[in-house]
Amino acid sequence: MSPWKAARTGDAVTAIDTPALVLDLDAFERNLQRMAQALAGSDVRLRPHAKSHKCPEIARRQMAHGAVGICCQKVSEAAVFVEAGIPDVLVTNQVVGDAKVRRLAELARRARIGVLADDAAQVRAYAAAARATGVELDVYVEVDVGAGRCGVAPGEEAARLAAQVADSAALRFAGLQCYHGPAQHLRRPEERRAAIAAAARRAIATRDGILARGIPVPRITGAGTGTFVHERDSGVFDELQAGSYVFMDADYGANETGSGEVAFEHALFVRTAVLSHTTPARAVVDAGLKASSVDSGLPRVWQRPGLRYVKAADEHGTLAVDEGTPIALGDALHLVPGHCDPTVNLYDELVCIRGDVVEDVWPIEARGALL
Amino acid sequence: MSPWKAARTGDAVTAIDTPALVLDLDAFERNLQRMAQALAGSDVRLRPHAKSHKCPEIARRQMAHGAVGICCQKVSEAAVFVEAGIPDVLVTNQVVGDAKVRRLAELARRARIGVLADDAAQVRAYAAAARATGVELDVYVEVDVGAGRCGVAPGEEAARLAAQVADSAALRFAGLQCYHGPAQHLRRPEERRAAIAAAARRAIATRDGILARGIPVPRITGAGTGTFVHERDSGVFDELQAGSYVFMDADYGANETGSGEVAFEHALFVRTAVLSHTTPARAVVDAGLKASSVDSGLPRVWQRPGLRYVKAADEHGTLAVDEGTPIALGDALHLVPGHCDPTVNLYDELVCIRGDVVEDVWPIEARGALL
Repeated sequence: MSPWKAARTGDAVTAIDTPALVLDLDAFERNLQRMAQALAGSDVRLRPHAKSHKCPEIARRQMAHGAVGICCQKVSEAAVFVEAGIPDVLVTNQVVGDAKVRRLAELARRARIGVLADDAAQVRAYAAAARATGVELDVYVEVDVGAGRCGVAPGEEAARLAAQVADSAALRFAGLQCYHGPAQHLRRPEERRAAIAAAARRAIATRDGILARGIPVPRITGAGTGTFVHERDSGVFDELQAGSYVFMDADYGANETGSGEVAFEHALFVRTAVLSHTTPARAVVDAGLKASSVDSGLPRVWQRPGLRYVKAADEHGTLAVDEGTPIALGDALHLVPGHCDPTVNLYDELVCIRGDVVEDVWPIEARGALL
Repeated sequence: MSPWKAARTGDAVTAIDTPALVLDLDAFERNLQRMAQALAGSDVRLRPHAKSHKCPEIARRQMAHGAVGICCQKVSEAAVFVEAGIPDVLVTNQVVGDAKVRRLAELARRARIGVLADDAAQVRAYAAAARATGVELDVYVEVDVGAGRCGVAPGEEAARLAAQVADSAALRFAGLQCYHGPAQHLRRPEERRAAIAAAARRAIATRDGILARGIPVPRITGAGTGTFVHERDSGVFDELQAGSYVFMDADYGANETGSGEVAFEHALFVRTAVLSHTTPARAVVDAGLKASSVDSGLPRVWQRPGLRYVKAADEHGTLAVDEGTPIALGDALHLVPGHCDPTVNLYDELVCIRGDVVEDVWPIEARGALL
């Protein structure tokens, strides 16, 4: 990694070295508050996804705003947050492989740990590891409610797996994971509403089949930043797993916000500077695709009319410059990343600014936690 | 980062935890030898680009195979390689900003350091920092030979900048940077040949204009893995900057290899395992876009007929499974990354295998070096 830091607490924002990952604390805190307000007076709880930020400092602030725990996607990610003192972590993924399952069970000595299953072999492995470690694990059956990725089919297949979990001594059947990923980025509000309505019907049918076997279904969990108001209002979901709401990104920003939905602000930016400007219509900045992930589209230039980010190479970003737009070598500007999660994963630190000053620098401790 | 390592020296390949970045040492060493053979008997030198691997162990092996030094793209990257003992580093980029330029000059106390310029202001900043630090810097004028990104126009503009460098006491005018990035991935050999022929004509015209001012042009440098045989044979280029040849990736693998070109082998893989397999036609692996960069296309499944990687999410990869293809939960397989450079940048270590055994684990020391 770089032998130098992009910034230190107390620096002026203008002194931040580039490229750097910047968090606007005012916008971030308003996002935390908006989510808390959106769930106030409801029985639905927030368990935000930490795969978006990988940063224990952010998880602590989410807990202070009422989150009941966090989600992670990898056992190694969960280990970072447990080590940081987060008491309740759900790995929203299947965990396969003896070493990984053993490590997962060991985390349950220090925190409440949940995990997903969509196969009988996973359940057997979780049960064996939990028994050997002397712990209990929360196991959720993942149901494919429309995403077409992991999860068993709704209905009978899910009920059989739930029964297997419920019959396993060291496992608690904790409920159903019903996350609909592709629904998050449907652009029109009515498309998102319809997708979650269909997901909720599949969740209900599955839950009722399990209840009919006499097995309680403690929780139904899912949702993301793009759809969470629909899961909140469904009467079915108990917990919500939104993560990107703290940051927002250009992909979420491209969703049309419907009536009753919550508008979050862009709080995460890549600060970059112009390193080449040899023709009037083009400037090249020092943030390419190793500084802002382009998997979900190019970054957007923030509040600098006349500049568009039009091409990303490894270490270069090409800006199209409209005639008469002021820009010069060394000028710094902020980009809104196309996709916040993989962009955060490119950095070791988050430079937290308030107004013109660097207020803090937070380590992204689970950066690169792939195992 | 992950509290656990994916593998240790002496482990069986089957014991590598997933996802992991794996280097097949036999294929890697053949790639090193093929490049050395391709340049044997020629006056053209190799200065491989280290932005692809960010790994001093690999740079040392490249030097042992005849490289005269390495290229980097960032000052912080260069610092990692100078610290590791590489004696000659060219930053193939414009460096802008007082802190960065000062750090660049300080590196020149310990190694021969080169840098690019395409603006008079950069040259003034380099000269001031070199004087203040008591060092000399090699400065190359970057010429836009067809890439349409950085670099001045060929001809008179480049000559003026070269004269400015030559007149600066603490700077050595080292020659011309003439890299044609987009030519690397033109799929047909004759397209690549034509693009480099045009680039070489622009380089010659620029060189001759500088020579006409009585300024020697010590070196013309450029080229990548897709085109380097054409720069080698051009009679113009003195140094080649290919980097990906040590690894190859799916994007380079999609180039058609022409007569007289060198075929390199895939040596870099992402090892991944099946974590969900709920329907016969689909399996989900634990390597998504945080494990294999998708900016230049999806990864390819390596030597497992009947399996295709068809979709990447943050932590999931979806495989399409042809009927009758054997695959089960927990099965491990290797992916050829779509683009090696940003994929390497996602990992802290490179697991080096030979046959069935992990022979070594190399730190990717410049991972995340963005400044």
